Amino acid sequence: MSRFALVLEYNGSDYCGWQRQKLQPSVQEAIENAICKLEPDFSHVNAAGRTDTGVHAMGQVIHFDMNKDWSSQTLLKAINSQLRPAKIAVLKSTKVDSDFHARFSAIKRTYLYKVIIRSSPLVFKRGLAWQIYKDLDMDAMTQGASFLVGHHDFTSFRSTHCQALSPVKTLDKLQIQDELLSSGKQYNFTLEAPSFLHKQVRSMVGTLVSVGLGNLAPRNIKQILVAKDRSKCGPLAPPHGLYLKEVCYNPDPFAK
Amino acid sequence: MSRFALVLEYNGSDYCGWQRQKLQPSVQEAIENAICKLEPDFSHVNAAGRTDTGVHAMGQVIHFDMNKDWSSQTLLKAINSQLRPAKIAVLKSTKVDSDFHARFSAIKRTYLYKVIIRSSPLVFKRGLAWQIYKDLDMDAMTQGASFLVGHHDFTSFRSTHCQALSPVKTLDKLQIQDELLSSGKQYNFTLEAPSFLHKQVRSMVGTLVSVGLGNLAPRNIKQILVAKDRSKCGPLAPPHGLYLKEVCYNPDPFAK
Repeated sequence: MSRFALVLEYNGSDYCGWQRQKLQPSVQEAIENAICKLEPDFSHVNAAGRTDTGVHAMGQVIHFDMNKDWSSQTLLKAINSQLRPAKIAVLKSTKVDSDFHARFSAIKRTYLYKVIIRSSPLVFKRGLAWQIYKDLDMDAMTQGASFLVGHHDFTSFRSTHCQALSPVKTLDKLQIQDELLSSGKQYNFTLEAPSFLHKQVRSMVGTLVSVGLGNLAPRNIKQILVAKDRSKCGPLAPPHGLYLKEVCYNPDPFAK
Repeated sequence: MSRFALVLEYNGSDYCGWQRQKLQPSVQEAIENAICKLEPDFSHVNAAGRTDTGVHAMGQVIHFDMNKDWSSQTLLKAINSQLRPAKIAVLKSTKVDSDFHARFSAIKRTYLYKVIIRSSPLVFKRGLAWQIYKDLDMDAMTQGASFLVGHHDFTSFRSTHCQALSPVKTLDKLQIQDELLSSGKQYNFTLEAPSFLHKQVRSMVGTLVSVGLGNLAPRNIKQILVAKDRSKCGPLAPPHGLYLKEVCYNPDPFAK
């Protein structure tokens, strides 16, 4: 028995999210079906994070056990070959110790949220960013974001269905960068934490965009945070702007 | 009667190219159908360049005549609204003089060709770049490209079906730039000329990629050019890496 870890990239548009569902296509099902073609008695994979319906990944990490002692590069190619034409790709593959766990061994997760400001419909980035028609106030959003960084009770920014034992988390980074596009402008929100609550990123980005639009003042972010009241949260940002960008481990199993 | 010019962006994947065909969906048909919803007796549009099947545009320019004296911004919004959910967007709209012609008034055309080097299947840029599995020699390609810039007989680099009266054209610019992607590397070929021959860009890029792969030497580009023989040309680059990026006029009708 050998344990493997993979880095996956996927376009979440076609899936009901990471987790296997009875009646809808999931990323987990697509991956497990691909691996089953290589070892028919294969059981299941474990992911670092369960991305919601429509959420994308540039760096989801999964682990699973195989009977055969595959070369990690042969396994990468074989799974990619079985996945076609799904918009899911294995970017990296490595053999890991039997105690490695994609979710529980992770020490840091990075999410990226993309907002595009433009008046015409999106063409090449349709379904890959949240389109907003009015420009955002970058200074106000950055000021609002500063209240969220650190060790806090994030009750106001988690889904009422969140199953985490505690709403207290440490947000290490919330950086907002803007870039000019050939048509329009893009804001990239980068968020880093050891772990996140359910819908925490989309709740925080949605509320910060309300600040950027002038519907909330930066100091309202502080008030919403200390209120510990979900009903005070701004609108949830849509799933299609969100990317699970990176999951980190120590030591890094993918380091060469 | 008022004449209008529009700048269009489109994903060519779903179309048989710009030009209207009897049995396949074309960009021209999609645009004309959208405008017909606004003025039912509307006849047709003229484009700056007839993009081939699968070729994209970031800056195609078209012109057409309308009975009603539309405000250009109202027209832009109305056409975009009628185009949904097609992956075609009007980026700019302006009223032009009755002697403006999208094709014949153009003084410069810019094409962009995207090549992505990566071993895993493309996910977010699938259908939007030419994927190559082995890295390219940038210096060799740049050296090869230098032979193509200038006033030449491009017979070796034009389709045998090309209807242009003369194979002599002036290529003002052929620049190659590389950028690192989160997974892989991208080469952007930017080509500028007053006008191009049919399949000239894809013929030149395909031949330069052969140089980048080491299948041809940079000096072979010079030999192929002076041979004036289509059979000497390297493989045609696929359509899905090509973008009609910009069409220029003097004066610029879209300048505010």
